[in-house]
Amino acid sequence: MAAAGLQVFGQPASTDVARVLTCLFEKNLEFELVRIDTFKKSHKLPEFIKLRDPTGQVTFKHGDKTIVDSRAICRYLCTSFPEDGNRTLYGTGSLERASIEQWLQAEAQSFDAPSSELVFQLAFAPHLKDVHPDEARIAENEKKLQNMLGVYDEMLSKHKYLAGDEFTLADLSHLPSSHYIVNSSDRGRKLFTAKKHVAKWYEKISTRDSWMQVVKMQKEHPGTFE
Amino acid sequence: MAAAGLQVFGQPASTDVARVLTCLFEKNLEFELVRIDTFKKSHKLPEFIKLRDPTGQVTFKHGDKTIVDSRAICRYLCTSFPEDGNRTLYGTGSLERASIEQWLQAEAQSFDAPSSELVFQLAFAPHLKDVHPDEARIAENEKKLQNMLGVYDEMLSKHKYLAGDEFTLADLSHLPSSHYIVNSSDRGRKLFTAKKHVAKWYEKISTRDSWMQVVKMQKEHPGTFE
Repeated sequence: MAAAGLQVFGQPASTDVARVLTCLFEKNLEFELVRIDTFKKSHKLPEFIKLRDPTGQVTFKHGDKTIVDSRAICRYLCTSFPEDGNRTLYGTGSLERASIEQWLQAEAQSFDAPSSELVFQLAFAPHLKDVHPDEARIAENEKKLQNMLGVYDEMLSKHKYLAGDEFTLADLSHLPSSHYIVNSSDRGRKLFTAKKHVAKWYEKISTRDSWMQVVKMQKEHPGTFE
Repeated sequence: MAAAGLQVFGQPASTDVARVLTCLFEKNLEFELVRIDTFKKSHKLPEFIKLRDPTGQVTFKHGDKTIVDSRAICRYLCTSFPEDGNRTLYGTGSLERASIEQWLQAEAQSFDAPSSELVFQLAFAPHLKDVHPDEARIAENEKKLQNMLGVYDEMLSKHKYLAGDEFTLADLSHLPSSHYIVNSSDRGRKLFTAKKHVAKWYEKISTRDSWMQVVKMQKEHPGTFE
């Protein structure tokens, strides 16, 4: 049992699990990751879709407290352990926190749906048997994401990160889906490189130690596209 | 939950866990692997020693049955699922099974102790801070293992595998420790290459799909010597 008694249940390949892991690494907290892989007959490797399912859920436990929403878990970690690791991740004053919350909620309410759809269509569907990427849905969600990123680009022309000049939960929360989209195809990458300030921002947030550790964990997993 | 309800709890790096996983792959059974990694403050990667501890335990569950001895788990899998995957892994007649048992018990009673010591001294101690390989213990256990392998070499001059001309649990059971010794150093490798028939045998058993899959899982894990 980890000293602080923090436990995460799920696969790093899941965007929700990845969000929570990144937060734990930023906060430099000790925790246990509990994962269950199903090894199927004949295949030997864990079932592809189940494993790489970007909608795979996360469960978090701290003592007898259980939380299942990845963003709620991140908020909980920051407010429960304000002095550990990155102390400014969720802001230190109420004004800062309000600004972080604004972008964190924008991510959950407006960025998440189109980006999740694009993760599926661009990064997963091409590798699945009998599933064909749906061009109409791609175009529709690409448009939505471009609009969102247009707003971001404007904001990011004024300061380095979404909620100011510090990396916060608002930025962190965008990493898991963005990563799959950027690495899926030229088309996906262009969404994040076409806009100058968004491109610089993504470059900065995606090369943080915490996130690179999560990407490493995703890659190390037996289930790959190979 | 896997269809057959088989669950293994532990790290593939453990020789006991590796033994059970190899058996499950040989038997082509569906199962779940449940692993818990502890991520420590500052390190970010799972605690090295704990993770790579070759004496790490394995727990196996099938419905409400629980078994914790790796060789007992292998026997259980073969007798419970005789028609799945490799059907000759534990022999098909009583004479064959007696011969397999003889070598399986030789492994557990005479091969395991010196080989486990060599796994620690040759493969792990050189990478641990404040632990120095103990030359006297290495020499003593090397001698014991050489004697054992001398007997094996004689047997293997008569047939391809320890218990006859088929790969069985008797051979499988030797893989986890042998692998660490062979890959630890020239000194370790020579133990298995110096004797002609042992060398051919080890080459054959260590390149089986089932075992190579386990080695892959051991390597993919975040905890490495790097």
